[in-house]
Amino acid sequence: MTVKTNVFCQHPDGLILFVSFSFPIFARKKRMYSYSYLFSFTQKVFETIGLSDLEAWQAADILMQAELRNISTHGLVRLPEYIRLWENKRITTTPEFKIVHESPSTALVDGGKGLGLVTAPKAMKLAIEKAKIAGTGWVSVRNSYHFGIAGYYAMKALEHDMIGICMTNANPLVAPTFAMQGMLGTNPIAVAIPAGEEPPFVADFATSPISRGKVDEYEDQGEPVPEGLLQDKEGIPTTDSSILRKGGALKTLGVDTIHGGHKGFCLTAIVDILSAVLPGANFGPTVVPTLSYVKDKAGANDNGIGHFFGAMRIDAFQTAEEFKKGMDYWIRTFRNAPAIEGEDHIIIPGDPERESEADKMANGITLSRKSFEGLIKVAEILGVDFDTKGFTE
Amino acid sequence: MTVKTNVFCQHPDGLILFVSFSFPIFARKKRMYSYSYLFSFTQKVFETIGLSDLEAWQAADILMQAELRNISTHGLVRLPEYIRLWENKRITTTPEFKIVHESPSTALVDGGKGLGLVTAPKAMKLAIEKAKIAGTGWVSVRNSYHFGIAGYYAMKALEHDMIGICMTNANPLVAPTFAMQGMLGTNPIAVAIPAGEEPPFVADFATSPISRGKVDEYEDQGEPVPEGLLQDKEGIPTTDSSILRKGGALKTLGVDTIHGGHKGFCLTAIVDILSAVLPGANFGPTVVPTLSYVKDKAGANDNGIGHFFGAMRIDAFQTAEEFKKGMDYWIRTFRNAPAIEGEDHIIIPGDPERESEADKMANGITLSRKSFEGLIKVAEILGVDFDTKGFTE
Repeated sequence: MTVKTNVFCQHPDGLILFVSFSFPIFARKKRMYSYSYLFSFTQKVFETIGLSDLEAWQAADILMQAELRNISTHGLVRLPEYIRLWENKRITTTPEFKIVHESPSTALVDGGKGLGLVTAPKAMKLAIEKAKIAGTGWVSVRNSYHFGIAGYYAMKALEHDMIGICMTNANPLVAPTFAMQGMLGTNPIAVAIPAGEEPPFVADFATSPISRGKVDEYEDQGEPVPEGLLQDKEGIPTTDSSILRKGGALKTLGVDTIHGGHKGFCLTAIVDILSAVLPGANFGPTVVPTLSYVKDKAGANDNGIGHFFGAMRIDAFQTAEEFKKGMDYWIRTFRNAPAIEGEDHIIIPGDPERESEADKMANGITLSRKSFEGLIKVAEILGVDFDTKGFTE
Repeated sequence: MTVKTNVFCQHPDGLILFVSFSFPIFARKKRMYSYSYLFSFTQKVFETIGLSDLEAWQAADILMQAELRNISTHGLVRLPEYIRLWENKRITTTPEFKIVHESPSTALVDGGKGLGLVTAPKAMKLAIEKAKIAGTGWVSVRNSYHFGIAGYYAMKALEHDMIGICMTNANPLVAPTFAMQGMLGTNPIAVAIPAGEEPPFVADFATSPISRGKVDEYEDQGEPVPEGLLQDKEGIPTTDSSILRKGGALKTLGVDTIHGGHKGFCLTAIVDILSAVLPGANFGPTVVPTLSYVKDKAGANDNGIGHFFGAMRIDAFQTAEEFKKGMDYWIRTFRNAPAIEGEDHIIIPGDPERESEADKMANGITLSRKSFEGLIKVAEILGVDFDTKGFTE
């Protein structure tokens, strides 16, 4: 890392000289690490708890993609949660990946109580393999746990000229329209669509207006959450950023019925049903929570959470070449359309994450205090080295 | 129709007698018709413009389902628009249904510039046939026009123990996040999921917070639209219910970025891409508008709008019996969960529409003034009888 300083010097003749110095900094940046350092550390952590070399690499790749793509709420901050699940024997690190039933274009997979980070890449691969033969492939998974960012799996389809789709259910924190309590996860949907000269369209979003991680960030900063996003345990609107710990819940996308909150409920419910009821995982409020403050309503019945993966071969519809031209036209039409005052242009889904990826790969990743402290704890528990001094260049 | 009147009579002995009279009413109700009368009329209209007997029955069935299910914005009020498209030779009533390309689980269909009401039922049937063999079936359609309610097609899967999915793009009225103008349709998504003892889960919603039809209703009543739903032609928020005619646009689901409006944009965009770019129909702002006040940006390039249909056989994942038990459990869990003060219970998607269907089938359908006047006009143009006096029983 270098710093550039400009100095103006007045010459004895009255001439003003402009001198620019560039010099390297050897000082360490607080909580900043290189991509490769964090990747190696994470891989080592997963190897230590018993994942195979390949699986540990894979799991590290998923979490590091979240860090690079600026979705750090689904990145390294989750490591302590995984370790806790492993310590409590809620997950196994050597799960059997079992295809329970299949058809030419579908499969139901039992994840054998493995981490989603281990099971989900295999399930998405299976969907892609099915699509190669049947045109599309759809895999639903039960007995799994948190799998990182949904977009990671959807994007796996792109290199095969396929559209990738991924969904999952999660801890019940979202209150359906008219409900007093959180009953559904923030259930994300990711859809990745290849383009030609343009980068791909990658939408990856929690179906709630904001994620739990964002609420945590407001809480960490002692700030209230903007209006319309939260309700307390009686279902009354609130801006208290600690409300999830007090029995409160997130609202649905659209918030109230006037602004389409019931549509947000439908969307989150569809993800819950496809991800959990279809494969026979725990749905909605019956999900065994991984958050200490969410009430456990599952009882003895723990079939984990569920995921749903899809891959559609473009050329099962039209030629990939024609389609990609169409997508380039779509992306340019929207990117170049007139924007409202104060905004440069319409943002194409996937663009900000790709920009963040390039930046962080080159300049390093700054961990949040919570992530940083979590990694120190994980390193201690597992006896893995972790350089608390951070990034040096 | 009968009216029941209760009369209390005091007997000379002091006893109070309770007498109940029921007598029929022969008076006609304003703009009220029986389901069967409107069905026959609509079928006759479609036969008159050249649809086959079966296709005319099918088209009438779709529009009448919208009426019954209280989605009258997609029902008979659309008939004059269809007739105008036919008069202007924008559509043909004897289109060729052409499978352009297919794989075991997919097909691309060219609708040959037919009405969606003619092409879409065949496309959904094809998706179901594909699913019977490949586990799932996915059909994208180009060169089509308005197809009524998306839920109609999704629900066709239910009788086969399949999950049905349907999407379409539409007139560009929704402004993407940061966009000054309407560029996307209100692009609906419908998902129908079978249950066992409970009625099915049927979500069918425009991906914008409200539909264009609802804005029209506010305008007809001279009322402003609630805040957060509309913007003017500069992209500035407004409540003016006539703004769509003045270059204004609908906001996305979630409204602003704080409340997830960019997620609503993603959702509407995904429907646009799957429905239009995938089959090669006109996408987003390039849709040839069927609304006089939407600017035509398509030029000579008219490949109609597009649709996307999906059918997933439940037993391509797990047994239909097990799954339906799971859905009964899901539905009951949500229906019986505590509701916020002032509400009875959480509404399961599909319940209100089914209740409306039973009510209107038994008690008749009251047409809006706009629908009523539209039918009179259509009857005049085509020389078809229409009883303007309404319902008699």
